Amino acid sequence: MTAAFVQTVQQTVDAEWAKIKQGGFWRRVMGEPVPMALYRDLMLQVYHYSRHNSMNQAITAFQPAPEGLLKFVYKHAAEELGHERMVIHDLKSIGMFEESDLDEPPFPATEALIGYLYYVALRYGAVARLGYSFWAEGVYGHIAEPFGKISRDLQLTSKNLTFFGSHAEADEAHIRQVTEAIARFATTPEDQAAVLKVARTTLFLTGQLIEQVAARHPMGLARP
Amino acid sequence: MTAAFVQTVQQTVDAEWAKIKQGGFWRRVMGEPVPMALYRDLMLQVYHYSRHNSMNQAITAFQPAPEGLLKFVYKHAAEELGHERMVIHDLKSIGMFEESDLDEPPFPATEALIGYLYYVALRYGAVARLGYSFWAEGVYGHIAEPFGKISRDLQLTSKNLTFFGSHAEADEAHIRQVTEAIARFATTPEDQAAVLKVARTTLFLTGQLIEQVAARHPMGLARP
Amino acid sequence: MTAAFVQTVQQTVDAEWAKIKQGGFWRRVMGEPVPMALYRDLMLQVYHYSRHNSMNQAITAFQPAPEGLLKFVYKHAAEELGHERMVIHDLKSIGMFEESDLDEPPFPATEALIGYLYYVALRYGAVARLGYSFWAEGVYGHIAEPFGKISRDLQLTSKNLTFFGSHAEADEAHIRQVTEAIARFATTPEDQAAVLKVARTTLFLTGQLIEQVAARHPMGLARP
Amino acid sequence: MTAAFVQTVQQTVDAEWAKIKQGGFWRRVMGEPVPMALYRDLMLQVYHYSRHNSMNQAITAFQPAPEGLLKFVYKHAAEELGHERMVIHDLKSIGMFEESDLDEPPFPATEALIGYLYYVALRYGAVARLGYSFWAEGVYGHIAEPFGKISRDLQLTSKNLTFFGSHAEADEAHIRQVTEAIARFATTPEDQAAVLKVARTTLFLTGQLIEQVAARHPMGLARP
Repeated sequence: MTAAFVQTVQQTVDAEWAKIKQGGFWRRVMGEPVPMALYRDLMLQVYHYSRHNSMNQAITAFQPAPEGLLKFVYKHAAEELGHERMVIHDLKSIGMFEESDLDEPPFPATEALIGYLYYVALRYGAVARLGYSFWAEGVYGHIAEPFGKISRDLQLTSKNLTFFGSHAEADEAHIRQVTEAIARFATTPEDQAAVLKVARTTLFLTGQLIEQVAARHPMGLARP
Repeated sequence: MTAAFVQTVQQTVDAEWAKIKQGGFWRRVMGEPVPMALYRDLMLQVYHYSRHNSMNQAITAFQPAPEGLLKFVYKHAAEELGHERMVIHDLKSIGMFEESDLDEPPFPATEALIGYLYYVALRYGAVARLGYSFWAEGVYGHIAEPFGKISRDLQLTSKNLTFFGSHAEADEAHIRQVTEAIARFATTPEDQAAVLKVARTTLFLTGQLIEQVAARHPMGLARP
Repeated sequence: MTAAFVQTVQQTVDAEWAKIKQGGFWRRVMGEPVPMALYRDLMLQVYHYSRHNSMNQAITAFQPAPEGLLKFVYKHAAEELGHERMVIHDLKSIGMFEESDLDEPPFPATEALIGYLYYVALRYGAVARLGYSFWAEGVYGHIAEPFGKISRDLQLTSKNLTFFGSHAEADEAHIRQVTEAIARFATTPEDQAAVLKVARTTLFLTGQLIEQVAARHPMGLARP
Repeated sequence: MTAAFVQTVQQTVDAEWAKIKQGGFWRRVMGEPVPMALYRDLMLQVYHYSRHNSMNQAITAFQPAPEGLLKFVYKHAAEELGHERMVIHDLKSIGMFEESDLDEPPFPATEALIGYLYYVALRYGAVARLGYSFWAEGVYGHIAEPFGKISRDLQLTSKNLTFFGSHAEADEAHIRQVTEAIARFATTPEDQAAVLKVARTTLFLTGQLIEQVAARHPMGLARP
């Protein structure tokens, strides 16, 4: 039954990804040369939300949770700490970072994603937040296509892609751990509904995040 | 300077509305007969977020705020209490309500809006949440066009529209109060940035909410 | 059964008061002339916790609660707003207030009471917090004896006692409202356990608060 | 200057301990044979608060904090997870544990300590909570005397004392780490005031916890 539930989460996530792949970001990136500024804007949004991912994971502990899940939570919160600095490193490595860029507020979808995850943590707790981890740990397969295109357009090498590179490597083990955690801990109807809700909502917001990046760089206007 | 800031908020909000009016909801509603099911789905989303608006206003008190602003907060929180029941009344009045409809989870944008407003309350406090009240109190002018179309298509009368009717009447006084509160309390650069961020993010999420309603009822398929 | 529960709360509170009346504060105040400085220290502690009572009442709305109870919460939160200024007024009226007194941190018991009530609000919600309101609204009967002694020793008149005076007047109506709210809303075993726990814990902390005031002014040492 | 601040914290803590050592618990334990039931009541209170210490440490992440401090927080939160089970083990090892004992609510001082630490976490954050860790890690030196007496009276061996035994061993390294963290991270006047406030308040509450245990077992009445 829990194996069946993991499949349900996977289907929910796949359906959401299918919508995202029909959207403006995919069209923009795959259809025309990608300008440096689009890539920088994208990475700045990644910076904004990724620097909260450790903390909004840790504070899920406000809601009672099984000890094994809290152990998982603390371990992952510790691993993600400071990862946003890789984003800055990657932008610096191609000369696309100004300290003042960080003063710009996050885009609305980014801000909503950050805030929603703190809410999920305090209100729903650790089981529910697995709905976010589930697709976030497996994001690299889905975004390989546009990221490949961006890398080719901008001639990025692995030295410029430490954030996504290091995460992609950790991928397989993490996906397995999150999947196991969902199968083990999301066993009540309430918890399963919460996992699905959080998976759908956070992936929707992330889809909007990349849409808002693309909207700043309309097709046929910008050149790299 | 604060009068100037109110203008800045107004411009931010107007720009966001302009985007929404170019979107799929406006096109769907204005372009073809509106099916009952679309209206019901819209009202169910309104139900979901509106029943949290009193609470996520009250808990802004977690962050220190001037006494005058907290007085405003409590008063408005009390006024909004239970307003979601009007939504149910309106759906019942046209025979479009099943108790089981409330078991369906909110759409992702609705869920994100609900969660984000709790986050705003606990993290940013009462001044920042004024960015939401600012446009929400004045929403009726903006949505008059599609709501007029929906009313004509579905032959709704004022008896079927108590939620939006009662709020629209309270409009003018409330807008003035919120505007005054922003001018009076959002005086530091940090507070003003927070008001703008919250205005933009919540209106973006509300725009997505109606897009997701429209997406369930594509053009040329449904008939009233 | 709920009438029986109100009696249980009353007994719990009475037992806690009985302990307090055996303590050092009662002995100190009733047994020797009360120095001005003891009264000032007491009122400063009252200032510290009373300026949070409105806010930690409002944020109980973080936990789902019946509409009737939230209405009660908002009304009382609004009424208590700013009451701490009466404490300052009372101290000023006898020339015992220095602005810098407010820079001193609250005593440990006061700090614990403040923090515990925010925890009660966010974790347990509005029903549980009634356990605090229950005895706090009826405090004036219990403290009439030492306050009478203090008033005589320091020759205070009603002009110097606006904080306790105005609260004592509101007494009867408020006690009735809180009692009714407990009878109406604290109906599950969990809620009743929470009400008792909060009543006992907050009255214990308040008892310690006055003990810590008395400990600063040992018998036989200070003179008014 | 920060070394000086660590000394200030130490003096604050020493002064609070001096008061505790003058209290009823010390007198009760050192002055007469300790009954099993007193020891059980004490350990049940330790059970209640210790099972929250991991969580109320983790959720300090709600407040922004330096990366190095969050790393410290996650590590310690993970280490403390599940330690309350040692308390149960210890009680079982002497036949003094009934499952139903856990249904009894914590004593008021224990409940206040638990709640206050959640408040400290959400409101003040990780630096402030170091004020609790500071004395809690070094508690074993202070309580060696009454615990030695209890052990002799009840003929406890190291097999019955896994909770305090394992913590006492970890002592030296942990004290050094917490002291270093305070010296490194509590550098502003606000942070230092918060550390002192939390140290004083949590030690006061712990002192009251043992007083309430002693009060249940008055001298000259109970026999082991």
